[in-house]
Amino acid sequence: MESRNIRLAVIPGDGIGTEVVAEGLKVIEAVGAKIEATHYDLGAARYHRTGETLPDAVMEELRGYDAILLGAVGDPSVPPGILERDLLLRLRFAFDHYVNLRPVRLFPGVATPLADTPAESIDMVVVREGTEGLYAGTGGVMRRGTPYEIATQESLNTAHGVERVVRYAFEKARSRPRKKLTLVHKTNVLTFAGDLWQRTVDRVAEEFPDVSTDYCHIDAASMFFVTQPERFDVVVTDNLFGDIITDLGAAIAGGIGLAASGNINPERTAPSMFEPVHGSAPDIAGQGKADPTATILSVAMLLDHLGLEAEAARVEQAVADDIVERLAGWASRTTHEIGDDITARVSS
Amino acid sequence: MESRNIRLAVIPGDGIGTEVVAEGLKVIEAVGAKIEATHYDLGAARYHRTGETLPDAVMEELRGYDAILLGAVGDPSVPPGILERDLLLRLRFAFDHYVNLRPVRLFPGVATPLADTPAESIDMVVVREGTEGLYAGTGGVMRRGTPYEIATQESLNTAHGVERVVRYAFEKARSRPRKKLTLVHKTNVLTFAGDLWQRTVDRVAEEFPDVSTDYCHIDAASMFFVTQPERFDVVVTDNLFGDIITDLGAAIAGGIGLAASGNINPERTAPSMFEPVHGSAPDIAGQGKADPTATILSVAMLLDHLGLEAEAARVEQAVADDIVERLAGWASRTTHEIGDDITARVSS
Ligand SMILES: CC(C)[C@H](C(=O)O)[C@@H](O)C(=O)O
Ligand SMILES: CC(C)[C@H](C(=O)O)[C@@H](O)C(=O)O
Repeated sequence: MESRNIRLAVIPGDGIGTEVVAEGLKVIEAVGAKIEATHYDLGAARYHRTGETLPDAVMEELRGYDAILLGAVGDPSVPPGILERDLLLRLRFAFDHYVNLRPVRLFPGVATPLADTPAESIDMVVVREGTEGLYAGTGGVMRRGTPYEIATQESLNTAHGVERVVRYAFEKARSRPRKKLTLVHKTNVLTFAGDLWQRTVDRVAEEFPDVSTDYCHIDAASMFFVTQPERFDVVVTDNLFGDIITDLGAAIAGGIGLAASGNINPERTAPSMFEPVHGSAPDIAGQGKADPTATILSVAMLLDHLGLEAEAARVEQAVADDIVERLAGWASRTTHEIGDDITARVSS
Repeated sequence: MESRNIRLAVIPGDGIGTEVVAEGLKVIEAVGAKIEATHYDLGAARYHRTGETLPDAVMEELRGYDAILLGAVGDPSVPPGILERDLLLRLRFAFDHYVNLRPVRLFPGVATPLADTPAESIDMVVVREGTEGLYAGTGGVMRRGTPYEIATQESLNTAHGVERVVRYAFEKARSRPRKKLTLVHKTNVLTFAGDLWQRTVDRVAEEFPDVSTDYCHIDAASMFFVTQPERFDVVVTDNLFGDIITDLGAAIAGGIGLAASGNINPERTAPSMFEPVHGSAPDIAGQGKADPTATILSVAMLLDHLGLEAEAARVEQAVADDIVERLAGWASRTTHEIGDDITARVSS
């Protein structure tokens, strides 16, 4: 496959974000993908300097790229929610990243916190809705700071928003050997939203007779992730449940240092954005301790999304090989060393 | 301690609920607590027979008891949410069970799905709010069944509701050796509700200088439950996050067959209700396969709540002993046999 020039916007962000993104870019270069990377200085530093999180003009510029690579945003020096909401979530919403794709896969050789769990029993993909639900940001507060305060949050779910992500999940399930889709929700309590999700899955299922479907409450699913992860193949769920369950997924698959994600706009009406599931980890920032593997796997998803399937596969294979062969020395390698090792495998 | 007559309302409910409750009652008798138990036929069978879930008159009768022991409600033959909402959640709300108390403790001898995790590293109590949040049931649907459908769910949080449960959690933390309280929420996304929770914890913390406080997002907490459960001593959280995290807690502490809970009205303006965390498990109902231990541990919480601390301690000890000594034969014992074995230990 011939690669065309990729116009990539890079948002390293905060904390370890800058460190891991640097390694991701090395790998993109090494794999021979022609990129023009443009860095955007967004995150806590910019916020403190100028008060800006994501100026409109910058957002419109970002819209012109083929894809975005993001490190992490968030810093204890900024009130909780500001960067998350006005930068990360704003991009997901503005660019209609309605599929938040998060593979949960235990690479052979990686230690899982679960006892007696062979690698092949953890191999699923979570399709998390990315533009609705409790992330809509609607809600409010009244009589703040008084004994009569009331604070609300609203989960907004639309037929349009649910159907498109469910449809994507069915396609994904169809493409996998087990062809199984599990809806995770809490239909017995969130009856309005749950009913919409369940009806949508039931209806779309008729178009996918080759895919088997299943349902699991979020509380039970959390349990099964730990006790029977092999139950799951493709999981489709709402924004908040997806947030929770993919961190749990990262934990069982060997930790947040390995968990990749793609915020995808399948119709490509705006650039998709790829980022490690982990955050900015201010406690270890600047020490070269961060594992760049999650970012490098996110780069593989990015390449795949851009049609560079062969390059994506090479990056994934390099990570898998790196994990198997270097496991003994794992804990002692720096961010750079891991990046270099994977880069060397990709280039060779 | 002299025991007075306990007026106990028993709602065995559906599926394995009836089986496990029978064992719980045996244990109450054996421990020498004087009870008058009155059974209430509520659940799927009654719903199908009469269309009723919880008639008002029955609810008012229940109000007169000292406590309620509930097995489980829910059955696939009833549309999702009906029994849960109109029976279980209605009782929690009507009787102001604002503390949903769920110990997460790994008994020595119990197999946890986590590798390399000694029993002492899992010993926490989750204080889940029980009367607000997304469980309020507010929300709605518009243009149902059309491509323009919108379904909403609302999380309602009040200063009154949050403060009382936070205060209870601080008291609980103060009574434990580690004296540590962790708020679990998602303040970076649920900014209105999260702000109320965080401010409340900060304010009440000033009255508890001996208790250390901590904060953890729900996604990170789900990860830490699996990778570092020893981080947690007392966890305080909202209704939905508590639902999810206590099932996860049950999983890491050896499974839902051992997880007890109390729906507590600390001011005793209405009876508190004790129930195993597990559901009605229709797939194994009627086969004598259900583990009654969670119900028996819920009975211990019930006795403790009624001031029968010595009896409660005896039941807990009997369970702990049963687990240690019978572990080998665990899987092969029926519901009755487990109940009988624990009963024998309590009586002796
Ligand atoms: C940082 C935060 C807003 C974000 C989310 O909740 O989606 C993160 O946890 C994630 O999963 O990408
Ligand atoms: C049955 C259901 C409504 C209930 C809940 O969500 O609270 C259950 O999961 C629990 O945890 O007690």
